[in-house]
Amino acid sequence: MEPNKTNPNPVVVEGGEENWASRTWALLSTLRDQSPLVQCITNFVSMDLMANTLLAAGASPAMIHSAEEIPEFTPHARALCINVGTISHDWLPAMKLAADVANKAGRPWVLDPVAAGASGFRLKACLELVGKKPTVIRGNGSEIIALSMASVGCSKGIDSSHESVDALEAAKSLALATGAVVSVSGAVDIVTDGHRVVGGHNGVAMMQKITATGCSVTALIAAFVAIDPSHPLEATASAFSIFGIAGEMGLELAKGPASLRTHLIDSLHGLDQATVLSRVKITAL
Amino acid sequence: MEPNKTNPNPVVVEGGEENWASRTWALLSTLRDQSPLVQCITNFVSMDLMANTLLAAGASPAMIHSAEEIPEFTPHARALCINVGTISHDWLPAMKLAADVANKAGRPWVLDPVAAGASGFRLKACLELVGKKPTVIRGNGSEIIALSMASVGCSKGIDSSHESVDALEAAKSLALATGAVVSVSGAVDIVTDGHRVVGGHNGVAMMQKITATGCSVTALIAAFVAIDPSHPLEATASAFSIFGIAGEMGLELAKGPASLRTHLIDSLHGLDQATVLSRVKITAL
Amino acid sequence: MEPNKTNPNPVVVEGGEENWASRTWALLSTLRDQSPLVQCITNFVSMDLMANTLLAAGASPAMIHSAEEIPEFTPHARALCINVGTISHDWLPAMKLAADVANKAGRPWVLDPVAAGASGFRLKACLELVGKKPTVIRGNGSEIIALSMASVGCSKGIDSSHESVDALEAAKSLALATGAVVSVSGAVDIVTDGHRVVGGHNGVAMMQKITATGCSVTALIAAFVAIDPSHPLEATASAFSIFGIAGEMGLELAKGPASLRTHLIDSLHGLDQATVLSRVKITAL
Repeated sequence: MEPNKTNPNPVVVEGGEENWASRTWALLSTLRDQSPLVQCITNFVSMDLMANTLLAAGASPAMIHSAEEIPEFTPHARALCINVGTISHDWLPAMKLAADVANKAGRPWVLDPVAAGASGFRLKACLELVGKKPTVIRGNGSEIIALSMASVGCSKGIDSSHESVDALEAAKSLALATGAVVSVSGAVDIVTDGHRVVGGHNGVAMMQKITATGCSVTALIAAFVAIDPSHPLEATASAFSIFGIAGEMGLELAKGPASLRTHLIDSLHGLDQATVLSRVKITAL
Repeated sequence: MEPNKTNPNPVVVEGGEENWASRTWALLSTLRDQSPLVQCITNFVSMDLMANTLLAAGASPAMIHSAEEIPEFTPHARALCINVGTISHDWLPAMKLAADVANKAGRPWVLDPVAAGASGFRLKACLELVGKKPTVIRGNGSEIIALSMASVGCSKGIDSSHESVDALEAAKSLALATGAVVSVSGAVDIVTDGHRVVGGHNGVAMMQKITATGCSVTALIAAFVAIDPSHPLEATASAFSIFGIAGEMGLELAKGPASLRTHLIDSLHGLDQATVLSRVKITAL
Repeated sequence: MEPNKTNPNPVVVEGGEENWASRTWALLSTLRDQSPLVQCITNFVSMDLMANTLLAAGASPAMIHSAEEIPEFTPHARALCINVGTISHDWLPAMKLAADVANKAGRPWVLDPVAAGASGFRLKACLELVGKKPTVIRGNGSEIIALSMASVGCSKGIDSSHESVDALEAAKSLALATGAVVSVSGAVDIVTDGHRVVGGHNGVAMMQKITATGCSVTALIAAFVAIDPSHPLEATASAFSIFGIAGEMGLELAKGPASLRTHLIDSLHGLDQATVLSRVKITAL
């Protein structure tokens, strides 16, 4: 990996978790300054909201998925987001190729294993992608549990009556087994590298009533990791927090999920330093 | 078909058409309680609004179209929605496979024959899908007329200067020939099983200026039929009414088609019992 | 080309550039009266906004991309829009076929060479499409420069420090080499046939923060060219102006890019004569 190429102005924030708010703001403002190119190979449902999320945050999205273009184009992207939501046999090879090219070019990449357990085909595809060493994996609880069980090969200790606890243990196991930062969306967003665990406490429940919010936060994670590829855990937690704050502010104006979607993107675009510094809620777990 | 599996809490509403409002509310509140999984194999244009419509109504959408996944995944869905809007030769086999799997698993499924008459390829694809016995077919007048003429093999009596009357006759013929409930969107939404005919009088004209509203009401019909698969005519009329009421309420706040789209989804999410009971307009025709 | 078929009521506006506002209004009101069918073969990201833009303007969008349907369907469309945003090897043949069918049927067609320079595959695809004689090409500065350099085969005089000037020269060269009207979105939108050059001064910068606004104005150009295929330069400049005015009015109500998107479409739908006549800003350059 060549940090000087992937990150011309690395973000350096001293101190521990008390400095999450400062770090998050530094990442967002650097993102806005640098407008990193983020390539997304994603599902048909999420393309619109994902592109608008990246634009509102200050990044430059590129929805390019053709195998013919990946060897030439992917090295120019600062980060790659792969999402298997509407995967089919003809899209998987390009996803794998893009992961390989990103790895070779030293670019971070983020995997969203949508509905990982929905079929054997999908689970196998996700495991093949996990095998290509994503920088970050982001899913919901059941996706991360499915992936961890299939990846680590053991379901012991998984108690389905305690999904949030299970997801944490699954995330830690998956992180240790793969080397990826693993994150789980939920009432508290969990981010872990297998050793450290942090929790993101921003966001509102109604965001789950908008399609593609999960996909979009994954793309935002890719944009944040593009800015600070040496600290994927911190970048991931910060991205969750920024998206969650935008949702909180959006909810203040919203009358339902569709207006929440509108106000969330508007808020993400308009977030200022004072708001970010006062609202970021990230803690050690 | 195994009703106990597909419909754990069947909706039972006694009485005739005077009870449409009660039945519609019962279906919606049961839908919200059960959050049925609805698989959609649909066109690229409608995926976003369709998923958001299902989420706002309380259902769980899954946009999964890969033939590799259908044998394993489709039986878990409570209903299936197939929409041919952006069909191509590589999507048709998965649509046919999904219809077969849904039939075998006793799941209801709904067909949206978008632009059925636009080409020979498309009409043939629609006829092949019709041959797989959809529970409900939902189209606009020209689509249902095209399908009925091609399916029943006779255009006698079709007078193009009276499209709504023609559509009603076409719908009845198609229903009798196929065994499906056939519904036609229009100023009055028509629903028929070939014998009974009911009309839905909710909705506003500006909904036609929003892309994918027709596709989305078809998906909502699938969700309602998932709740009451034994009464597809009633479920279909109720879904039309709920979507139409959301549109009426949305129009009260809208300044044009894009804000109508936002307010429609917000209203759908927020619909309460009093509103539904007072606004449902379904009559025998 | 058979103007009587493609344009039953041609727009005739006498006079020079002082009459741009009258011409633009005449085009829009004729578009609303005729509701021309516009076929779009476009990328997955833009389908929703593009269809809604066409509907709000008064056109009838059809997102049909299957090679099986094009020979039969495309001649019924009044104009065709081809956009290579998410192109892959399996979509290119249909794009080329549709261009051929449109040409044979005497239908105007518009090319949007999204990210033309992003890869050799993409540039080659764009050049093949350019070779099929689009009526109008619409891109941003870097796309038109990439296409012009590859097409005309010469980069002399291209000074990257003056992109807007470069884009103008590139557009003129490309127009002369291909016979297309070439247009470049920017702070000032440029439209040229290689001899005349006009500038559109409507629009707001925040429109660039909404995905698919560029794609959507290309589709709107197709709708306007459908109305007046004999004057593609004028139709293109008018479409830019109408979309830009809708953006200006939208911004008056917007709190960020997502609400701008909503208000833009609402405004486009509601534009009246007085607003158009007072706001159109098109000049000779």
